[in-house]
Amino acid sequence: MRRLSRLEGQVRGIARMVEREEYCMDILQQTAALRAAVDSLNLVVLEEHVAGCLKSAVERGRADEYTEEVMDVVRRTMGRPVRARPPGD
Amino acid sequence: MRRLSRLEGQVRGIARMVEREEYCMDILQQTAALRAAVDSLNLVVLEEHVAGCLKSAVERGRADEYTEEVMDVVRRTMGRPVRARPPGD
Amino acid sequence: MRRLSRLEGQVRGIARMVEREEYCMDILQQTAALRAAVDSLNLVVLEEHVAGCLKSAVERGRADEYTEEVMDVVRRTMGRPVRARPPGD
Amino acid sequence: MRRLSRLEGQVRGIARMVEREEYCMDILQQTAALRAAVDSLNLVVLEEHVAGCLKSAVERGRADEYTEEVMDVVRRTMGRPVRARPPGD
Repeated sequence: MRRLSRLEGQVRGIARMVEREEYCMDILQQTAALRAAVDSLNLVVLEEHVAGCLKSAVERGRADEYTEEVMDVVRRTMGRPVRARPPGD
Repeated sequence: MRRLSRLEGQVRGIARMVEREEYCMDILQQTAALRAAVDSLNLVVLEEHVAGCLKSAVERGRADEYTEEVMDVVRRTMGRPVRARPPGD
Repeated sequence: MRRLSRLEGQVRGIARMVEREEYCMDILQQTAALRAAVDSLNLVVLEEHVAGCLKSAVERGRADEYTEEVMDVVRRTMGRPVRARPPGD
Repeated sequence: MRRLSRLEGQVRGIARMVEREEYCMDILQQTAALRAAVDSLNLVVLEEHVAGCLKSAVERGRADEYTEEVMDVVRRTMGRPVRARPPGD
């Protein structure tokens, strides 16, 4: 929850910057930070889900079924721009 | 600005979902949508900056200098994890 | 393996395009396709690893330990954005 | 070109690792490096294209038209490979 109210604060901060027509570069820096925060929220939610899957798999002794569920949620989470990064070149 | 208040609404929506402990998968769907919205905001800001660069390049007759500025901002936007990470964040 | 030799073919195709100085836009289309292919290879390798983790978790009755292993490999696959994140954030 | 033959080498290296059934984690590390290399190739091609656009814009005194062309190629490089992958895919 703290993470989420920080996210809201970030969005409001960007709104203020746009309103004041601040320098694009600074806004882009903030939106990049916002995206990183969203990604990190994603991972927290994902981790909780994966933990639940593993727990259920162990309890019910069903590895395959939960492998699929884990992969499904991983695909959903990754199926996007997390990957779009250039190397530190 | 409309885009930004929509973003804020999305963040609040996710906060409510987390509070109510809704199903992870649904939350992940919403965070994915949020990320897409952030990306598209990024592109709007980027476009404005690129337009400014092109205008200056034409006015001053300096292609090379502004090529660099465009690429710098593109790298920042794309290379978020590494380069756009605000120092000390 | 088939997937990998296809990947090699794609790289060679792009090399030829660069050599012939073909239109940038076409090259970018091909490199985008190459990236998609790499991503999907990633998912295949990841899936195998996740399946192994789930199997071990069920066999040994240890959900937590393997949740961590799954998340570790997911973070690695998703990219450094995650690892670059300061610990404890 | 050097970059491309290095890319080819990377793909072959991964093929060998898969053949020998090496540890998933090591393979994932290599595929992540491969993806970074593809991204960085992308940026090189993009830069060349952007430089061409800026040059033409200055020569012909047409900022708007080339802003659009730059944004089109930027969207392709960052936005498209990404949007082509819906979260539910």
